Amino acid sequence: MTTQTTETFQAINPATGETLPGVFTEATVSDVADACEQAAQTFQTYRQLSGHAKADLLDGIATEIETLGDELLQRAHLETALPIARLTGERGRTCGQLRLFASYLRDGSWVDARIDTALPDRQPAPRPSLRQMLRPLGPVAVFGASNFPLAFSVAGGDTASALAAGCPVVVKAHPAHPGTSALVGNAIGRAVAALGLPAGIFRLVQGRSNAVGMALVQHPAIKAVGFTGSFRGGKALFDAANARPEPIPVYAEMGSTNPVFVLPGALAERGDALARAYVESVTMGVGQFCTNPGLLIGEKTAQWPAFVQAVGEVVSQTPVGTMLTPAIAGSYQRGLAHLQTVAGVQQISESGGLAANFAPGTPTILQTSAQNFLGNPVLAEEVFGPGSVLIEAETRAELLAVAHALGGHLTATVHGTADELPEYADLLAILEQKVGRLLINGFPTGVEVSHAMQHGGPYPATTDSRSTSVGTNAIRRFARPVCYQNFPDALLPAELRDQNPLGIWRLMDDELKK
Amino acid sequence: MTTQTTETFQAINPATGETLPGVFTEATVSDVADACEQAAQTFQTYRQLSGHAKADLLDGIATEIETLGDELLQRAHLETALPIARLTGERGRTCGQLRLFASYLRDGSWVDARIDTALPDRQPAPRPSLRQMLRPLGPVAVFGASNFPLAFSVAGGDTASALAAGCPVVVKAHPAHPGTSALVGNAIGRAVAALGLPAGIFRLVQGRSNAVGMALVQHPAIKAVGFTGSFRGGKALFDAANARPEPIPVYAEMGSTNPVFVLPGALAERGDALARAYVESVTMGVGQFCTNPGLLIGEKTAQWPAFVQAVGEVVSQTPVGTMLTPAIAGSYQRGLAHLQTVAGVQQISESGGLAANFAPGTPTILQTSAQNFLGNPVLAEEVFGPGSVLIEAETRAELLAVAHALGGHLTATVHGTADELPEYADLLAILEQKVGRLLINGFPTGVEVSHAMQHGGPYPATTDSRSTSVGTNAIRRFARPVCYQNFPDALLPAELRDQNPLGIWRLMDDELKK
Repeated sequence: MTTQTTETFQAINPATGETLPGVFTEATVSDVADACEQAAQTFQTYRQLSGHAKADLLDGIATEIETLGDELLQRAHLETALPIARLTGERGRTCGQLRLFASYLRDGSWVDARIDTALPDRQPAPRPSLRQMLRPLGPVAVFGASNFPLAFSVAGGDTASALAAGCPVVVKAHPAHPGTSALVGNAIGRAVAALGLPAGIFRLVQGRSNAVGMALVQHPAIKAVGFTGSFRGGKALFDAANARPEPIPVYAEMGSTNPVFVLPGALAERGDALARAYVESVTMGVGQFCTNPGLLIGEKTAQWPAFVQAVGEVVSQTPVGTMLTPAIAGSYQRGLAHLQTVAGVQQISESGGLAANFAPGTPTILQTSAQNFLGNPVLAEEVFGPGSVLIEAETRAELLAVAHALGGHLTATVHGTADELPEYADLLAILEQKVGRLLINGFPTGVEVSHAMQHGGPYPATTDSRSTSVGTNAIRRFARPVCYQNFPDALLPAELRDQNPLGIWRLMDDELKK
Repeated sequence: MTTQTTETFQAINPATGETLPGVFTEATVSDVADACEQAAQTFQTYRQLSGHAKADLLDGIATEIETLGDELLQRAHLETALPIARLTGERGRTCGQLRLFASYLRDGSWVDARIDTALPDRQPAPRPSLRQMLRPLGPVAVFGASNFPLAFSVAGGDTASALAAGCPVVVKAHPAHPGTSALVGNAIGRAVAALGLPAGIFRLVQGRSNAVGMALVQHPAIKAVGFTGSFRGGKALFDAANARPEPIPVYAEMGSTNPVFVLPGALAERGDALARAYVESVTMGVGQFCTNPGLLIGEKTAQWPAFVQAVGEVVSQTPVGTMLTPAIAGSYQRGLAHLQTVAGVQQISESGGLAANFAPGTPTILQTSAQNFLGNPVLAEEVFGPGSVLIEAETRAELLAVAHALGGHLTATVHGTADELPEYADLLAILEQKVGRLLINGFPTGVEVSHAMQHGGPYPATTDSRSTSVGTNAIRRFARPVCYQNFPDALLPAELRDQNPLGIWRLMDDELKK
């Protein structure tokens, strides 16, 4: 309640350019500090909560989000131009992942309990009782993403996994959808209050300036950061976190061009179907997915020209979409234009559709040779939006050279027939070292939320290839092992007590058992 | 084979100052690059090796080290002044941990296999087959530590866990024991050759300059770093690794003062025994352990003066030891002198023994008040060697304030009676957030190599509190999850195939089974 100038902002409808109702207050550095200090204070009780109590909170958040009903979907639609059907699906995914973490907590085995019982008579020295489990890191800063206003935002995967680990969360809402963020933030607040938990478990800050985010990452109470967005944004947070007096981990998912390799047999067998599926994957959600395939590499076999032509035809029939913000639409247009300044890059087609909107994203496919790609690293950079580059390799060796030249990506994909895939084991081996997820005969868009999903990859796709931002493994990002030596049973966490009261899996003297 | 000036160096006996036989070549930047490039090349085959084949290598290394016999122990003794008995034990630990990782690999379940089977009929969208496991990061740079010439050096825990994960290793030997390092390096080379594996799996570089280490960390082929040593050294490597075009994880274990809290009941019950055990822990190995207790905090009860007196008596009977190097002995003396420039710090005793040696380490205990400790952060800094500071708290609240003021440490310890420990649950809760291992009624020196050990802790104890450098969990530092989507069974790693040919534990559709 200090006297200060209060800056405010409003959301813009990217389809029309109109200012939407609702005025949001730009958080000050002191607002951020307040949220972080409350989170730190609350951590002292929240870290002691049982898995079941945390599961109830996650379930409660899911229910409160559903209770928002159409109001949430309508607001998100106005702020992002994403269709209601897509947002309905995304809401289902958001609530589904909250409930998946709730069930993971009720199972309880995620803490990776390890018990080495005491061996008092061992020679030459006795072994003490050693019991280890994962414990929460502390308050986590989460940055909402523009492209998933629900599933990677205020109550998205980062928030769900941090709360599941036992960490209070301070979310910096993405400024493109402040109304959606406020609705979800209030829903979380109601779920927290309904269970009688302290409000500091979850705090939302709004703001358009980078200063708000920087203040959050630099606050000493914050112990880890989750981010989904641009390379520039993620790298800036990573650098700031490492420059702190106490460096902290940053899990920044920064984008990827998700190369797709089409082998000659697959091209011969189903070139037309591949062309259609590829363009669908490129243009789905106006190309605004982290796993959008921005590169397709093929060998110049007899079928290649027909494939390129088919791609061109499908693109020309795909309508222009509205992107998330005018700024993103502008970046997309500039990015495509920049690629086309490289000699040897041709545009083979763009959407023939027209759309009078404020943030248009025109589906566009470019084409170039493998030699040209290898000589111009700029062609490997992500252009976020419904565009992609076809790369034509003269030979198998050139195709492998393109694979070798790739940096880190979230995914890579190979399309091949059952017969030819084993002959391309060398290609698969190269790609496995570049990505977090390797697909056969599919497309990378559509990221399952499950135990086995890995949504992460070597730098620059993310700042930490050892982590995933989707799936139950995401919880590990916000925890660290603590070993309790020679503790009286009653002072141990329940997970480590002799009688295994929670019935969880534990590695007990070399043997995994319940 | 380029023409260049070759710099050489020799080892020094820290007990006598004499130059030891054996001339070692200072690696050049081009030697380092050569080792890294060979490691990168070898990674392409080594990463595909089965767990059993890697286990054979680790077992082979252990056998080759044992085959070195007394020659290794004698050389290590001359280079470090550590007694033969200690070195014999350390050799046992080194070979034991190689064999522990071998058995962990043969078990095979460490890869954390997760399988979500395909659900082709699921609505609204089918689920693809998703199979995930841990895969190696790539070549690892390991920095040998001064204080464990075997267990944390050339074939120590970092090398063992990196090789186990499937990563080739380039070791920068510690310049204080180049002869020991060369012997162990050659033993590893023989084990590699005996199995017909490429020599690039393991390379040793020697050198006294920081430039060798920096070149290693900055080489693009290196994908992770293991380090045990000083804060300054570890932080420099951490910063260099984060400043690379491709930042990489650095697991630097940088030291810790390992606070010990003695509660009033324990002091009353066994003050004399505690005084003896504390001084033994402080002076064991001339105080040259990462888990050396550099702080002891107690409440000023009626028994406190007698405890302080007992500590003083035990110290005065403890002989001066020879430290690892003259430089370390000099740092220790300067560090103690620096602490004593703070007003209110008294030396209560130092060793009465005399020793004519080149790198003397004199057991020394200082004492100060909790208020003085809280007002002078310098008193919390590690002074590596057989010294420690007793901190006297006027009240329980002051004792808790000292706990609150602590930074990150590897360990913390509480001594208390069965009755009083539950009354100090608040103290345990504070300490749990500051350390990787929390002990009751023990001393932190003596780090078990096992599944449940956690040897790591919040910054500045390490640069990554999520990791351990001791115990089987150390392998996870050098691996990352990869998800295989819709792979034909025959193209999957054996760990993920339908029939589970390796018989490992897998999380299969929500259920952990073999």
